[in-house]
Amino acid sequence: MNMKSLLGVDIQSVKNIEEDHRWAISLGFSFVFANIYTSHERNTDENDDSRTDKLSAPNFLQTNDSSIINGVVGKISSWIDLDNELESFRKKSEKALLEELEWASFQGFPAVLIRLKKKNNTNLARVLTTFMSNDYLTFRIWIGLPMIDETEYSCVNGNNIPQKDNSPISWWRQFSILLGDSISNFMLMLALPKSPVDQNIINHWYSEPIAALETRTDIYFTNKKGFPVLSVEYQDIINRFLKMKIQLVLTGDAKNLHGHLAYRQYLSWIWTNKCPMTVYEKHSKDMEDYLQDPLQPLADHLPSSTYSIFELDPYKYAAYEKATFQAINDLIEKRKQDGEVNINNTKSFASIVGGSPNLTLKEKITIMVLGAGRGPLVDSAFKAADSANCEVKMYIVEKNPNAVSYLTRRITSDWNNRDVELFAGDMREVLLPTRADIFVSELLGSFGDNELSPECLDGAQHFLKPDGISIPQSYTSYIAPLQSTKLFSYMSTQRPPRYSKKTKYASLETPYVVRLLNCHLLAPVQSVFTFEHPKPDINASNDRYRELVFKVKEDGVIHGFAGFFHCILYKNVTMSIHPDMHSPDMFSWFPIVFPIIKPIQIKADSELSFHIWRVGNSKAVWYEWACTNPEVTSIHNPNGRSYSMSLLSK
Amino acid sequence: MNMKSLLGVDIQSVKNIEEDHRWAISLGFSFVFANIYTSHERNTDENDDSRTDKLSAPNFLQTNDSSIINGVVGKISSWIDLDNELESFRKKSEKALLEELEWASFQGFPAVLIRLKKKNNTNLARVLTTFMSNDYLTFRIWIGLPMIDETEYSCVNGNNIPQKDNSPISWWRQFSILLGDSISNFMLMLALPKSPVDQNIINHWYSEPIAALETRTDIYFTNKKGFPVLSVEYQDIINRFLKMKIQLVLTGDAKNLHGHLAYRQYLSWIWTNKCPMTVYEKHSKDMEDYLQDPLQPLADHLPSSTYSIFELDPYKYAAYEKATFQAINDLIEKRKQDGEVNINNTKSFASIVGGSPNLTLKEKITIMVLGAGRGPLVDSAFKAADSANCEVKMYIVEKNPNAVSYLTRRITSDWNNRDVELFAGDMREVLLPTRADIFVSELLGSFGDNELSPECLDGAQHFLKPDGISIPQSYTSYIAPLQSTKLFSYMSTQRPPRYSKKTKYASLETPYVVRLLNCHLLAPVQSVFTFEHPKPDINASNDRYRELVFKVKEDGVIHGFAGFFHCILYKNVTMSIHPDMHSPDMFSWFPIVFPIIKPIQIKADSELSFHIWRVGNSKAVWYEWACTNPEVTSIHNPNGRSYSMSLLSK
Ligand SMILES: C[S@@+](CC[C@H](N)C(=O)[O-])C[C@H]1O[C@@H](n2cnc3c(N)ncnc32)[C@H](O)[C@@H]1O
Ligand SMILES: C[S@@+](CC[C@H](N)C(=O)[O-])C[C@H]1O[C@@H](n2cnc3c(N)ncnc32)[C@H](O)[C@@H]1O
Repeated sequence: MNMKSLLGVDIQSVKNIEEDHRWAISLGFSFVFANIYTSHERNTDENDDSRTDKLSAPNFLQTNDSSIINGVVGKISSWIDLDNELESFRKKSEKALLEELEWASFQGFPAVLIRLKKKNNTNLARVLTTFMSNDYLTFRIWIGLPMIDETEYSCVNGNNIPQKDNSPISWWRQFSILLGDSISNFMLMLALPKSPVDQNIINHWYSEPIAALETRTDIYFTNKKGFPVLSVEYQDIINRFLKMKIQLVLTGDAKNLHGHLAYRQYLSWIWTNKCPMTVYEKHSKDMEDYLQDPLQPLADHLPSSTYSIFELDPYKYAAYEKATFQAINDLIEKRKQDGEVNINNTKSFASIVGGSPNLTLKEKITIMVLGAGRGPLVDSAFKAADSANCEVKMYIVEKNPNAVSYLTRRITSDWNNRDVELFAGDMREVLLPTRADIFVSELLGSFGDNELSPECLDGAQHFLKPDGISIPQSYTSYIAPLQSTKLFSYMSTQRPPRYSKKTKYASLETPYVVRLLNCHLLAPVQSVFTFEHPKPDINASNDRYRELVFKVKEDGVIHGFAGFFHCILYKNVTMSIHPDMHSPDMFSWFPIVFPIIKPIQIKADSELSFHIWRVGNSKAVWYEWACTNPEVTSIHNPNGRSYSMSLLSK
Repeated sequence: MNMKSLLGVDIQSVKNIEEDHRWAISLGFSFVFANIYTSHERNTDENDDSRTDKLSAPNFLQTNDSSIINGVVGKISSWIDLDNELESFRKKSEKALLEELEWASFQGFPAVLIRLKKKNNTNLARVLTTFMSNDYLTFRIWIGLPMIDETEYSCVNGNNIPQKDNSPISWWRQFSILLGDSISNFMLMLALPKSPVDQNIINHWYSEPIAALETRTDIYFTNKKGFPVLSVEYQDIINRFLKMKIQLVLTGDAKNLHGHLAYRQYLSWIWTNKCPMTVYEKHSKDMEDYLQDPLQPLADHLPSSTYSIFELDPYKYAAYEKATFQAINDLIEKRKQDGEVNINNTKSFASIVGGSPNLTLKEKITIMVLGAGRGPLVDSAFKAADSANCEVKMYIVEKNPNAVSYLTRRITSDWNNRDVELFAGDMREVLLPTRADIFVSELLGSFGDNELSPECLDGAQHFLKPDGISIPQSYTSYIAPLQSTKLFSYMSTQRPPRYSKKTKYASLETPYVVRLLNCHLLAPVQSVFTFEHPKPDINASNDRYRELVFKVKEDGVIHGFAGFFHCILYKNVTMSIHPDMHSPDMFSWFPIVFPIIKPIQIKADSELSFHIWRVGNSKAVWYEWACTNPEVTSIHNPNGRSYSMSLLSK
């Protein structure tokens, strides 16, 4: 099913698949749902062996036109029930299911739809897992589920909360865990319920691998002109799911004068009028839920292309400029009080730029940009100095030799009339001629300290004056329990990531950077580790340990923990990917994810205890993590066996 | 610590380790417990850095005499608490612990003792896991724990049930799971409580890796002659643990006139007077908890040595003889009724052997021994026929060519005056000249059907007369949830077993045959699959599916499922390894264990749902299994990906 195949329609009773398909295309749909076998439908009599029917058309769906085949989702006969109480019915169902799957596989349909109708689907899961592991696969299996169980739902006296232990989400959860690694072959088709449900239910489904939303004709109402439309609540729900690149499906009889065409037109209208993408969404397009290895700018030399992506960020450099401007002003203010400033009204420059009378500091303010990359923070710092009408002495430090070459050129091209000096080398080792008033650096990872900003800045701190300012002043990591069936299946079948060592659990003991989309946070984020610069006690260890207790309000499955950072650049100027304080439009950082080896099934209103350590030796720093409640896990990544961040710069 | 080092004694305050050790040896102890550091003990002041003390003797335990070193378990200072609420105290503790561990490792003590005193030992677990993964290990860590928390215990108004969530077993459980795979470096030293505890508590500890039992001098009482003795209840507890090859340890001050020597003598007396081994125990000595690959006598050719072990079984062949005897008698009875018997009083043989008048059947009773091995079932059958005063026609079928050679020789040596014919080949294919009255076979595995007895006997069934008898008549598998920390650690670090395919989960998706000892069943066994012979409907499938719901009465951890079989050879003659019906002294079969990939932590009074399938195709048969409650697992061994039993005979 390619991404253009947006709208599908159900053929309730196939007469001739080629004609039916033509009809759907003519209405503007791009794919159809059709029963794989039509005769099975009637063969529910236990003693009647339907094998022989198999050879007589039109009992099963057949066409040689590949353009049609590619536009068909084959439906498994609805009477089939591998978890029926009657053993004979189970056996009959298993036989029929395998016949239909084999036929679908032989024909080459892109997907097959099976609807779950109850919680226990253990046998179905077994047979499907076996089938999907057995065959050279030509298709995916779509599991059809109602968003809520309407029969149950209505019983809960008008309350918008479905029965905990027998909601379709619990059916799916049990089914999906039974599938094990073969889950990667399965996706969901979710049916919108008779009346819109609240955000909590949507949130829960939002962590599951969804292929399509099913809209039944009976959830539409007819507007004054006789056309089918959906209520605003439904539009909102659909809009939310459309962020996930799902497909929309229409099922049921046309309930208005204009027939199926009118529904198709309405769904197309919804599609075209879906929420416009934010800047963040645009810049992260096609990277959603994709696992990236966290950068290690200390151990590696970043390529120019990576720097150029950073430099597009609309928020970050403006924030640095603002922070640097405030820091310069505060320093000037302080120097004024200390009598270290000459006020010179005659200098013409001042009158041109306007603002405060030009200042001559007895000694220039010294700024060091540590880890300058291609120099954007140098630019921000110069802009800040200019706004403050203040001349500065600029030192630039960078250890990436390629970036150094780039900077060398910029010194003569962009900064040729500035007081600027470049030092190639590691900030923990390089020898600088003096001490700075202001450090400017950006060595932050998605989890704040995970690109070793603390270690690098500590190593340079002796070049900062005792009353000097570091931008950033401090940063704090945040974390929350994450539910994402899709990410977990990616992580557990993932090649061990680049930096990880080849241990048994490597791929589940390594953090990933992920533009999170197909997921749900099961509790509010909590703060983890904070680092301050300059560091009050330079001998204090950067090792950390925190135990966090999350209160989980809903049934769910913990697949890992999502990490974020919040950074104070200077005073009130911040930079944040904390979900509730995210800096507007900033796209330089995606969240980090710490997987757990074994997902934890958790009940509503339970406490979840999470432990995390930041540990290091002279060569590397790493995280270790574990849960102790409601379940105990092993300690993940002990001794950095699977993953660590190298302190040895290239 | 070798197996002769049975008794250890605690040196409460070491003066001179060489003298103290000599003293202990002179009393008859074989090893001592001594503090690794003596000065740390006093250095609990936060600001006092004890590093410098390290160099001044006698602060730490030191000797160059390797015979002493090998007889010392180093004790970690008791003030050390890595999970203290005060961060500074935690850090100090971590530093001290690492110093002591490093010293112990450098000295080369065989073990180090750390006592747990509360539930939360998360940091301790982390540091120990790291330490144990880091170093070239010279020692094991012994974790000291009370069998019950006496402070808690006394609160529960005389009731013999410890607090569920804060009993030492729960401390250990959390700790041991945190350790992950490094658990294989850890063992327990369990302290007997002030008053004896009930079997339930012992059962729980019985699944844990226990190195030693600690008897404090205050649990002894003094007998009339002034010697220390333990109550019968304690003796029983110790006796039960002695089955596990543990060591006994004495701690505390001598509380009688005869000093430590009297305790040592008493412990030696307990040792020498421990329960004598049963026949079963003798024959399975040194195989306890050892993982064996299940035999596949169909796919492989068993070696003579394996047959010779079978043949030692004191129960099995007698049972077969009895069953065959009854079957023959029943057949004679039937033939009498059918008038197919001549009674001949003149034949002298009858009057010699006594019993019923000799019978001449119009047609001889035909017995087929299917899968005869080296022929012990042929012997039993002949003996049975002789006892029944009945001549029989014997056919022997065997597919193992080496066994066939062996049998060929026996035909001329042992059975030369018998009516016996040997057919080499697979019973599913071999052509036999006639049909049998009685099938005799033993193709059973620990789980009954897992050596493919059903498939083999079905394949030969057309050679059994319609009213013929099969010995065995039927067999049923049984299963129960298994708790065994030791087995789980073996299974998860195990090389993938011989028959298993090299999948990611191979070693945890393969059943093992294990002489179970260090384990505990968490619920009563339940029946699983039954097979009958002759099979009423020969076309019926041998595939099976069962869902079992176990009621677990105690907090615990499910590490897998232990399987057994119960077999009806004929009528009331049975053969069983079902724990409650075990055939006396029969040692031919040990239980089978089905692991699960991830242990399930379960609460008292929960239901545990287990699903198991027996599935096959034309080449192989395998089991798949899964849990759905209280936790859902993935389906284990889907499509036999990790393990199957081959139907293709060599
Ligand atoms: C995240 S990038 C930021 C680059 C640039 N300042 C920007 O904001 O676009 C971090 C930079 O710091 C450099 N770096 C990291 N650790 C360093 C160290 N110890 N000494 C010098 N440079 C370092 C890296 O090479 C990289 O260019
Ligand atoms: C468990 S051993 C029992 C041997 C012997 N009856 C005893 O009790 O000591 C099973 C025997 O059956 C043989 N066997 C297994 N499957 C067979 C088959 N399909 N046809 C013939 N022999 C078979 C094996 O080679 C092996 O000797």
